[in-house]
Amino acid sequence: MDVTTDNFQDVLKELKSLIDKCDFISIDCEFTGLDEAPATAIGTLRSASSGMANYTGMTAEEELQSRYEKIKASTMFLVVQVGICVFTWNAQTRSFIATPYNFYVFPREFKGLDRRFLCQAKCMSFLSSNHMDFNKLIKSGISYLNKQEEEYLREGITTKETEFIAGIRETIAEFLADETRSILILPQYDSYHRMLIHRDLSETFDDCFKKENVTVEREVCIKLQKNERTSSLGQTKAKIVESISNMAQKVEDKQIQAAIGFRHVIDHISSSKKLVVGHNMLLDMAQIEAQFCRDLPASCEEFKKNLHERFPLIVDTKSITSSDHPSFGLSFSGGTRLDAVFRTVMHDPFKKPIISLQDGCDKYKNNAQLHEAGYDAYMTGFVFLRTAQQIVMKSGSPSNSPQGKSSTGLTPRLKDLGVSCSRPIDVMIETLRMEGLLNKLYIMGGHSFHSLSLDDGGDEKMETCQKDGSNMGQMAVNSEYPQDSVNGNNGKGLWQIATSRSRNGKFHARDSRRPRQDSFEVNHAHKGQEKRPRMSV
Amino acid sequence: MDVTTDNFQDVLKELKSLIDKCDFISIDCEFTGLDEAPATAIGTLRSASSGMANYTGMTAEEELQSRYEKIKASTMFLVVQVGICVFTWNAQTRSFIATPYNFYVFPREFKGLDRRFLCQAKCMSFLSSNHMDFNKLIKSGISYLNKQEEEYLREGITTKETEFIAGIRETIAEFLADETRSILILPQYDSYHRMLIHRDLSETFDDCFKKENVTVEREVCIKLQKNERTSSLGQTKAKIVESISNMAQKVEDKQIQAAIGFRHVIDHISSSKKLVVGHNMLLDMAQIEAQFCRDLPASCEEFKKNLHERFPLIVDTKSITSSDHPSFGLSFSGGTRLDAVFRTVMHDPFKKPIISLQDGCDKYKNNAQLHEAGYDAYMTGFVFLRTAQQIVMKSGSPSNSPQGKSSTGLTPRLKDLGVSCSRPIDVMIETLRMEGLLNKLYIMGGHSFHSLSLDDGGDEKMETCQKDGSNMGQMAVNSEYPQDSVNGNNGKGLWQIATSRSRNGKFHARDSRRPRQDSFEVNHAHKGQEKRPRMSV
Repeated sequence: MDVTTDNFQDVLKELKSLIDKCDFISIDCEFTGLDEAPATAIGTLRSASSGMANYTGMTAEEELQSRYEKIKASTMFLVVQVGICVFTWNAQTRSFIATPYNFYVFPREFKGLDRRFLCQAKCMSFLSSNHMDFNKLIKSGISYLNKQEEEYLREGITTKETEFIAGIRETIAEFLADETRSILILPQYDSYHRMLIHRDLSETFDDCFKKENVTVEREVCIKLQKNERTSSLGQTKAKIVESISNMAQKVEDKQIQAAIGFRHVIDHISSSKKLVVGHNMLLDMAQIEAQFCRDLPASCEEFKKNLHERFPLIVDTKSITSSDHPSFGLSFSGGTRLDAVFRTVMHDPFKKPIISLQDGCDKYKNNAQLHEAGYDAYMTGFVFLRTAQQIVMKSGSPSNSPQGKSSTGLTPRLKDLGVSCSRPIDVMIETLRMEGLLNKLYIMGGHSFHSLSLDDGGDEKMETCQKDGSNMGQMAVNSEYPQDSVNGNNGKGLWQIATSRSRNGKFHARDSRRPRQDSFEVNHAHKGQEKRPRMSV
Repeated sequence: MDVTTDNFQDVLKELKSLIDKCDFISIDCEFTGLDEAPATAIGTLRSASSGMANYTGMTAEEELQSRYEKIKASTMFLVVQVGICVFTWNAQTRSFIATPYNFYVFPREFKGLDRRFLCQAKCMSFLSSNHMDFNKLIKSGISYLNKQEEEYLREGITTKETEFIAGIRETIAEFLADETRSILILPQYDSYHRMLIHRDLSETFDDCFKKENVTVEREVCIKLQKNERTSSLGQTKAKIVESISNMAQKVEDKQIQAAIGFRHVIDHISSSKKLVVGHNMLLDMAQIEAQFCRDLPASCEEFKKNLHERFPLIVDTKSITSSDHPSFGLSFSGGTRLDAVFRTVMHDPFKKPIISLQDGCDKYKNNAQLHEAGYDAYMTGFVFLRTAQQIVMKSGSPSNSPQGKSSTGLTPRLKDLGVSCSRPIDVMIETLRMEGLLNKLYIMGGHSFHSLSLDDGGDEKMETCQKDGSNMGQMAVNSEYPQDSVNGNNGKGLWQIATSRSRNGKFHARDSRRPRQDSFEVNHAHKGQEKRPRMSV
């Protein structure tokens, strides 16, 4: 369903209740641009290439920081569509119900806050060719204030207008407190200032006295007259001033709450603590943080901390499908683009669980709307369920998996570890946690795959998987798996266990600090590239 | 008429011929933003106010440079509509015919050149509320290369693709020069490189041999076969290499010519040397320079020089209508916004000349399309003709004015000065030159009016007219009028002569270096403001 200012209030109510009951939320954003161009000889904002970054000679930490800074620069572009797809397990039908929403979001000027944002010509053409309705976007896109902007406004900005209105309120308070007067004629003002007064009388004073324009010595003035409602403001000047101040505060709160707009959706997802799924979602998460929360911090460490606090459970399906997890075989050897993996998980061995679109969400039933955020979010959640289920099946968790008994005959690992899962989603989350695929964000590369672990607290900040030209290859794990901070499981080395198992059917506990290539071979030869390849973010 | 990629080629041909025969061209642009926000506590690209500039303590030159730097920063926003209205004098009907065009312009990625540009939320909403069709803009906007981008491309960018194609051409040249061979099978390449080869064979070689994909050892290869057309490339290797090089050059020229797109319009206007008219046009001219020509230079002096070279005759109707020229009386005391002055010049005393829309340009006949660039350009040209005519009437140039005899009884000044004008537009241009209103760009201010003289070569770079709160006031001319470079007239002090004359009906030659307030009084008292007020650009 497309969501704009026209139906936002209704959808927000419905969506909040849906999120409270759901299993997880998948998310996708569309942007006005991706890579900020480096300054070149032919103009600050043009570039002849996106500039291949060279990370040679950097430590892993420096490289990660450098990649992060590129992501941070990209937040000067705007998010124009946010797809949110809510997935809920239906125990009766033993299937997941998907409810996708396609939000058009566009900032509007509010009390002097007026955003500037970047666009990239190629990305705008790309959106256009994928049927983005820019007229709808700019006319009816849902506006928002991020946390930083809200804080700024609540600090109480003083403008000429607010000072002027404060003076008028003072005059009115004196008039109301003076029992001898029933009529106040304000001094003459120009039409703009009369408009400001009339607006404040309507909004703050809720029209609680009679007001009209009168002509005094050929100049228009505003005349106020006490009536029966006036006394509700109080009798003494102090009480009246307090009433006015309270009313003004209420009006401002209401205006700010309305202006927060789309951020209510993000805040509700965050406070639900539900799993958030994306495909190649690092930029999406960075943009959600920057546009709807606050400017990104200078350091990547700080960013990871903030993100983990806001969304404690994250799964990146790009990380999953790029992981060469043994349960996938060669399924994703053809590529891990969202549309490709979505097609792949429609077929063997990815047949379960059953996923249905909510009744009424017919837009995507028979129409692939690639690169519309709502549809991409739906595909992403779909891919998550199918791949997670496949990993669960292979990892074995017979009693709790959506499919009931696993046919793999493997040890029911979750039970072994004393994890109790009442819903299929919990089985999936715990399995992915054990497999080292929870809270791991994919970092784009050319022939390489980096992932950013939000759970990391140790020395190494990034995992590198180096691919050969055919997009397959050998994994080099540089990081260790620290103590899991959420449920106390020690996830160390579980990934290695799982993959080792795939070769010989048994588990081999091993030290994950040892380079992965020593213990893990896939069916593509290691082609001997450098350990840290060049790649662009 | 709206112009997009769909009809651009036809319109370009028609417009070029129209420009060659026209009297002058009026111009207007719409932008994605106006003022670049200063970095603030709440984010690099957001601002709580547009930031009132404070020029206190600056010399006139420093102030001008500072204002220019703000304009230069604004060129990070994009021009999205260019209105061009061509006005031609019809001697039979003794009227001007206006032909307006409304160009949608939008940059597209070309050979790796991919623009980044800024947008301002409030301006986007403004355009939307004024019916800008953003879908049309991004889908069908006419693309362009500016001069700088063209030069960059012509320098011969070397990419992996161009290197690859150069190697293929070399192989083909050897094959063609070898009489013993009739078939060439190129090595196997992946589908992307095969696509590059096929494209080059079609474009550069114009399919002048038979080509097909063949399977060699289960790999797809491209097979070339000589045919009767092959010999046209030459017999010796040297001759063949030369032919290929020539053909490749032609193809590239053609592609670049097509990619120049909308810039052909700007280039044609520039080379016509015709008068260009705008309303408050400094930003328009700066944007035209930056988007379609080259990045703005660091210094304002250099910018003025470049602009004057590109458009030797410029009239800013905002400068005219803000000038308090005695021939206007109080006509523009209500304000000098384009829509306001357009309404004003519909009535007395601005009744002449007659201006008609070209047959077929019905879009604007009965519909005010405010803030659509084509309509704004039309209004601007209209305002120019009516105000210029009014000045001509009052300055007196009976024999050549469009109205025939002037009824003012003033000295026919142009004749006195030995200027021969065969067309009404020449009378207007020469009169405005004498009045000091040619090549004077308005610089926006709060209660003030600065103008930027392109003809200046002397010490002072800017004129300041300080206005009181009612937008009227006293002119302080700080600049001198240097030797006129175009026709040898010495324009010095003519403005003062004309305005002095308005008081007593006679000319008083005076030294323009003397402050204007010494000799010129208008019917509004000088209110004694500081000489250099604060204002925002």
